[in-house]
Amino acid sequence: MTIYQAPLRDIRFVLDELLVEERAEPLPGDEELTPDLVAAVLEEAGRFCEEVLHPLNQSGDEQGCTLDNGVVRTPEGFQDAYRQLAEGGWIGLPADAEDGGQGLPNTLATAVTEMESAANLAFTMYPSLSIGTYEAVRAHGSDALKQRYLRPLVEGRWSGTMCLTEPHCGTDLGMVRTKAVARDDGSYRVTGNKIFISAGDHDLTENIIHLVLARRKGAPDGVHGLSLFLVPKFLVSEDGTPGDRNGVTCTGIEHKMGIKAASTCALAFEDARGELVGEPERGMHAMFTMMNSARLAVGIQGLGLGEIAYQNAVAYARERLQGRALKGARNPDGPADPLLVHPDVRRMLLTMRAFTEGARALTLWVASYLDKAQRHPDAAQRQASDDLVALLTPVVKAFITDLGSEVTNLGVQVYGGHGYIRDNGMEQFVRDARIGQIYEGTNGIQAMDLVGRKLPAHVGRLLRPFFHPLAAYLEAHAGDAALAPLAKAFGRLQRATGWIGQRGLADPDEAGAAASDYLRLFGLVAMGYLWARMAEVAQAKVKGDEGLFYRAKIDTARFYFERLLPQSSALYAAIMAGSDGMMSFNYEAF
Amino acid sequence: MTIYQAPLRDIRFVLDELLVEERAEPLPGDEELTPDLVAAVLEEAGRFCEEVLHPLNQSGDEQGCTLDNGVVRTPEGFQDAYRQLAEGGWIGLPADAEDGGQGLPNTLATAVTEMESAANLAFTMYPSLSIGTYEAVRAHGSDALKQRYLRPLVEGRWSGTMCLTEPHCGTDLGMVRTKAVARDDGSYRVTGNKIFISAGDHDLTENIIHLVLARRKGAPDGVHGLSLFLVPKFLVSEDGTPGDRNGVTCTGIEHKMGIKAASTCALAFEDARGELVGEPERGMHAMFTMMNSARLAVGIQGLGLGEIAYQNAVAYARERLQGRALKGARNPDGPADPLLVHPDVRRMLLTMRAFTEGARALTLWVASYLDKAQRHPDAAQRQASDDLVALLTPVVKAFITDLGSEVTNLGVQVYGGHGYIRDNGMEQFVRDARIGQIYEGTNGIQAMDLVGRKLPAHVGRLLRPFFHPLAAYLEAHAGDAALAPLAKAFGRLQRATGWIGQRGLADPDEAGAAASDYLRLFGLVAMGYLWARMAEVAQAKVKGDEGLFYRAKIDTARFYFERLLPQSSALYAAIMAGSDGMMSFNYEAF
Repeated sequence: MTIYQAPLRDIRFVLDELLVEERAEPLPGDEELTPDLVAAVLEEAGRFCEEVLHPLNQSGDEQGCTLDNGVVRTPEGFQDAYRQLAEGGWIGLPADAEDGGQGLPNTLATAVTEMESAANLAFTMYPSLSIGTYEAVRAHGSDALKQRYLRPLVEGRWSGTMCLTEPHCGTDLGMVRTKAVARDDGSYRVTGNKIFISAGDHDLTENIIHLVLARRKGAPDGVHGLSLFLVPKFLVSEDGTPGDRNGVTCTGIEHKMGIKAASTCALAFEDARGELVGEPERGMHAMFTMMNSARLAVGIQGLGLGEIAYQNAVAYARERLQGRALKGARNPDGPADPLLVHPDVRRMLLTMRAFTEGARALTLWVASYLDKAQRHPDAAQRQASDDLVALLTPVVKAFITDLGSEVTNLGVQVYGGHGYIRDNGMEQFVRDARIGQIYEGTNGIQAMDLVGRKLPAHVGRLLRPFFHPLAAYLEAHAGDAALAPLAKAFGRLQRATGWIGQRGLADPDEAGAAASDYLRLFGLVAMGYLWARMAEVAQAKVKGDEGLFYRAKIDTARFYFERLLPQSSALYAAIMAGSDGMMSFNYEAF
Repeated sequence: MTIYQAPLRDIRFVLDELLVEERAEPLPGDEELTPDLVAAVLEEAGRFCEEVLHPLNQSGDEQGCTLDNGVVRTPEGFQDAYRQLAEGGWIGLPADAEDGGQGLPNTLATAVTEMESAANLAFTMYPSLSIGTYEAVRAHGSDALKQRYLRPLVEGRWSGTMCLTEPHCGTDLGMVRTKAVARDDGSYRVTGNKIFISAGDHDLTENIIHLVLARRKGAPDGVHGLSLFLVPKFLVSEDGTPGDRNGVTCTGIEHKMGIKAASTCALAFEDARGELVGEPERGMHAMFTMMNSARLAVGIQGLGLGEIAYQNAVAYARERLQGRALKGARNPDGPADPLLVHPDVRRMLLTMRAFTEGARALTLWVASYLDKAQRHPDAAQRQASDDLVALLTPVVKAFITDLGSEVTNLGVQVYGGHGYIRDNGMEQFVRDARIGQIYEGTNGIQAMDLVGRKLPAHVGRLLRPFFHPLAAYLEAHAGDAALAPLAKAFGRLQRATGWIGQRGLADPDEAGAAASDYLRLFGLVAMGYLWARMAEVAQAKVKGDEGLFYRAKIDTARFYFERLLPQSSALYAAIMAGSDGMMSFNYEAF
């Protein structure tokens, strides 16, 4: 019952018109990647999302996954769609050509991930975990592991998982109990129980490659005693074909609020054969390769769900006739006016739009720096780009998933009672979006990462590639009154940053108490910067052929500055209130 | 898997310690209602909610309602619980003694509704609609109708419904197509289709009494052509026993995001025998009796769900060991510290607490004025009280249901991944809370009611019983620095009120554009006023026996003033941005 149209024009606006400076010179390897080629890839991806993935989204939610006799079955149509996904080369879009991938940049992969997530988030989780597994093995695995595992992952014949969480520990992985005992042949016997393993078992691929955090015998307690092991579901023979079953079984699947078509498994490892990935006791380090890319991907999911919620809400607001415009009928021949005439409905839709388009600009902007961090010929540029990505990864993850929940909830609200009915599909977006604020590190953990790790790193060095260009931009546009709200919000962010830096150093609870509000303030300002730039780009073109399109960019920016960015004032006040109010609250009195 | 403990001490704090002035003199009829008697009733109600209703909450959600051969079945255990509810006299708590009710005041009924909603919202909808039906028939029905229908509703032998919505109209009831044709005996033949009818059919009572909005033959178009009809499921014979089936059938039940154990029915009326309730073409007027009380009840539901989410989140935060306190281990002998040591977890819990306790104070405060409006011996006091209730009804409905969604979502967040798992029960609260923002008039409609009807009514008269006492309170406490945030927020509310009054008069879109943000600002200030008073009450007692309890009130008030009330600044800025940004946005460009 829902619709989805790949937002190709909006994506191209960001890639080709907004990020002109960032993407001015092609990075090594991108020389042949013309805007036309990018457009063609996006169009093809968009069609696949519209025609293959989206039609399975609601039925997938209704059917969910099932576990029978230790076998997880995905909903009807998922096997066929997955086959098409793999054959189309979509799984390996960002993977190296030498591993069977398409070697396309992160910007492009980000845009495709947005569309896939919008069309069918639950489905998208399967290939998304494969690429995470691919990246971790590629970055940390031995040549033998790479030789054996990378290509099947990229080609989609096998899939991957991240096995971190255990019943008694999620955030606090230092408590992991899964054990690894060395065997004579250099491999390990892995034993333990993992829960919440996305794509932990399913019927889409001929093998599943688990990356498992476990503790080697004799290794120290805590996170620094953890190593990463590759544990295939089926043992892989010398010639690379899956053979005997390994000692890992799916002992249960979770019934969840949403993403019901994505299997979430409890896995029991019993003397499973595993191979070390990377150095012993450096498991967290290796896992972070996977987690950072996963965190960006989760932010993009929030964007995708916001986009599809917006599209449906607008369609409904055009078609549903209810009430009359406050200043007189706009549709006098009909029994009522469309919802879209009502100011409060417009408020909701413009909020959805401003946050969604802003989130698209933000994710693609960060992706463009991820490309530079990986491939820019100049080391200083690589470092500065890497700094910016490291700084903004928790912001993209937490801020955009928070917005994903807000925007999808507004989508339900525009539908009124019909939004609460499952058949109409709007409430599924809310349920699916809700996990984004939780998995890959809760948004509270992201906020702690921002204030506790990223701000103080290298005496604030990570802030520079964000603060300096923004300050320069504001200075260059000092006469533009429309930017006053951004300048104000940026001032608050700067003061809050200084305050946290100073107070947090002396008392870590001060940083902790400020963290979540600070992260949102950061996100609002970053998005505001990109809205300012989008409006500027549009202003130059608003008198041309696509006047309506560019006018909407300018007007959405205005709405963002007038109605949404002022949230920065409340956040600033909350941050500056300090930690005492919450930390002195009596433990027993809660 | 969830817990629930009736918050009796907190309810008594509001009734007996906060609302001292409002409840200083017993209203006529309440002379024998001592605090001890109130406490006894609340304790008994609390036990019923804990022991009978709460255990059926999750199973009810899992099973939902089913429709087989036109018969709706409620989940297992609902029939027995309903029988106990009726036998205990709980349905008729606020109903007149002469109708078989207990004649207890709205304050008490509000507290009981909170507990019932917390324990099992879906279940609570059945009796709640019966009382709404009772109130409408009592206020507008003929003596014959009252004689026949009131007592069975109060005793719970029969239940009631509100049949307003049709497939093509929800908010805009002017488009109702259901028709009523007069019969020779003075009754009507009612024909039409209604949807989204809560408790429209079920297996809990021997009869169901539908109140149906329909248009008499020849009546004018629009809302002013609608009349209200009482249509029983089974025709009632002279001796008051249900007999033949009437022409109303349940043609479908909705599958919803939440409140799955509450049946939501499509009803087909075909020449159903109905009797006019009240004057012809005054159906909306009669229906509003039911809707105003229902709107307050929906706000209370948001409070109840917030309370149970808070209780579970705190219990989890105490018991779940994860990570270490930032300033060193608090539980050094355990493998980790409880979640409750972390600032960001405290931020979430205190937000939940401040909003929930604030919402309880707000609902009971309004209920105390509803009692006065109905029964105060002095006409001027009745009028002023009625004005205050009319003003705050949309605020209670919309603000507190918005908070219900925010607080239940925070509850999920405190649980992390475990919050997303259905078995743990936290996500059900989110799904159940979501409907509160939609039904009984969406929260956008509530906001329009506030700015479009309540503010301008009688040249602003409704504002007086709110603005004057608050201004006086602030003046009397002018030296108290802790109240500065409240004074600031109140100033914003006053300025925004003046601005909307002025601009909205000239351009209704200005009022419409400001409405939702204004309603929230209003709610924040009203809640702030009550937090100020709660802190003052607690301050006087904090050195006594219950020091911990009173200290927590003071500290929660502080958190509210420091961290939540500053939202008023962002809301004020959004309001003052005006309507142009959203109204000038091109219709086609959405």
